[in-house]
Amino acid sequence: MTSESIIAIDAMSGDLGAEVVVHAVRKCLDKESDLHIILVGKEKELSSLVTQIIGKESRIEIKNATEIVNMSELPTEALRRKKNSSMRVAIDLLKMGNAHACVSAGNTGALMATAIFVLKMLPEIDRPAIIAGLPAVGGTIHMLDLGANTISNEEQLFQFALMGSIVATDISNILRPRIALLNIGVEDTKGHDTVKAAANLLSSSSLNYVGFIEGSKILSGKADVIVTDGFTGNIALKTMEGTAKHFMKFLNTSINRDWFSKFQGIFVKPILKRLSLEMDSRHYNGASLVGLNGIVIKSHGDADSYSFQRAIETALVEVKNQMPQQIKKLLEQEKI
Amino acid sequence: MTSESIIAIDAMSGDLGAEVVVHAVRKCLDKESDLHIILVGKEKELSSLVTQIIGKESRIEIKNATEIVNMSELPTEALRRKKNSSMRVAIDLLKMGNAHACVSAGNTGALMATAIFVLKMLPEIDRPAIIAGLPAVGGTIHMLDLGANTISNEEQLFQFALMGSIVATDISNILRPRIALLNIGVEDTKGHDTVKAAANLLSSSSLNYVGFIEGSKILSGKADVIVTDGFTGNIALKTMEGTAKHFMKFLNTSINRDWFSKFQGIFVKPILKRLSLEMDSRHYNGASLVGLNGIVIKSHGDADSYSFQRAIETALVEVKNQMPQQIKKLLEQEKI
Repeated sequence: MTSESIIAIDAMSGDLGAEVVVHAVRKCLDKESDLHIILVGKEKELSSLVTQIIGKESRIEIKNATEIVNMSELPTEALRRKKNSSMRVAIDLLKMGNAHACVSAGNTGALMATAIFVLKMLPEIDRPAIIAGLPAVGGTIHMLDLGANTISNEEQLFQFALMGSIVATDISNILRPRIALLNIGVEDTKGHDTVKAAANLLSSSSLNYVGFIEGSKILSGKADVIVTDGFTGNIALKTMEGTAKHFMKFLNTSINRDWFSKFQGIFVKPILKRLSLEMDSRHYNGASLVGLNGIVIKSHGDADSYSFQRAIETALVEVKNQMPQQIKKLLEQEKI
Repeated sequence: MTSESIIAIDAMSGDLGAEVVVHAVRKCLDKESDLHIILVGKEKELSSLVTQIIGKESRIEIKNATEIVNMSELPTEALRRKKNSSMRVAIDLLKMGNAHACVSAGNTGALMATAIFVLKMLPEIDRPAIIAGLPAVGGTIHMLDLGANTISNEEQLFQFALMGSIVATDISNILRPRIALLNIGVEDTKGHDTVKAAANLLSSSSLNYVGFIEGSKILSGKADVIVTDGFTGNIALKTMEGTAKHFMKFLNTSINRDWFSKFQGIFVKPILKRLSLEMDSRHYNGASLVGLNGIVIKSHGDADSYSFQRAIETALVEVKNQMPQQIKKLLEQEKI
């Protein structure tokens, strides 16, 4: 690998189409001089967008892919029938060594199935997990699985904890990340059998396991890595986003209620702007599919160009940190 | 039943002890002239608190119970060994017809096990669920199960939907409540087998089933009743509370950052106060255990006196609406 970072982007699978992707690419290329982008999708459409939005740019290559995986498509169907989809071709580029990472805003299930099939899992890992950083009290917390799997057994939760610990050390420089299991109470007796069994596995491991954590404490900074199954994790993540949006909406309505509120609003708006920036879920877009032999970044399906830019930047950080190699190395050191 | 409402309160099981309970009782008695309270717990302690906080009051009765169920106690142990706990005695009063409802801030699992054992389930219902109203766009939404069960099968999710529909109609006067299943996506292919099977049951029922809903849309007002298993529901609920608290904390830090922020803060504070009131989870304290032959209200374990007051008021509304009788009647009309 040279010092340049080549990122393959599935430009067609997001809800908002290829235009937001090309805008994001323009911003990233402006910021990062050693970044190269392979845009994967319908060649004619992408060429036209690049000409229009970016102009002539030697660091962009377009790779034709005629099909698009739909959001409602079954993962197995996408994998079997759409071998020339933008998603598949982007992951193939990674497999063939033509790119260092892949970014997609497409169907999560299809992305995962394709990534597992093409790239394969790291040794000792059953299933990939989606992990992302969230803005918590005192810094970033890392949470997984955010929706790669709909159910998980205790061994898989244990593997997620292990991968999460490595990611937190590698990305956030936390030496012995505090690992917590998301549960409906903190007492040993709380929760279902799977979460209790995972607690037992973690307690007798070398990881810095600190116990159960409740939903109300996710952002409290009491743990660095929060481990849960993909169903619960996805719902917790989206619930946080929804609550934050609800909150902002309420504040905005509040300062437009009457003339006096509008007057108050003049003073509130700078604070709201700071809050917006700090809590903006777009800023935290770009979750990693960990556990694979390769860097695959999942963007929100409805990512706008700023969100998508953040997903590309996440990919870039992982390329520079050589994340899968780090995980593999540390997995070998850990007894599983 | 006369027009008076008698509520039995487990005064000992909350994290903050009996004092907050007695303060809450004082407020409720001041507001409701037909309310009678049976305080259940250590007689000496309760007598002393009542004398100190309320004084002489003919509408309060104290019922002695020598034991307390701990928060970490296994439900089966509490049920088997603590037959003279404040929790058990309060529920027994309900069973014997000496009270119309029971309120407890104690161990959820123990409360549920005791309530099932003493009161029994309504016909056609396997398990109780915890349901609560939440402040959403356009009004209140009702969500269940918030933690009565750690896992649920599709038939149980269907029963929750049915009970939720009845509660929403009865409490919020919604004629054909829109029922949604909480899931990790809105497409039919999303989620685990249980949630998909529950969707099939609901689609072919007479209920107004509107499909899957994501965590980000819980407070959107797109559904009136949100159905999920108790593990996910509890985590989603607490995540909402935690995010709202995080948000308020950030705003408060923001307006105390420097002298100019403090100046801005003068104008922000009235808006924050409105927000606080609107989003205050204490206001929504008091969840119902539905599906039982009797009204059992679960308060947050760490409820302060205002929260506990809200839980008593919820009990009162359900007594006046004769909730279990309504559910039973409507269950008989529905084909399950």
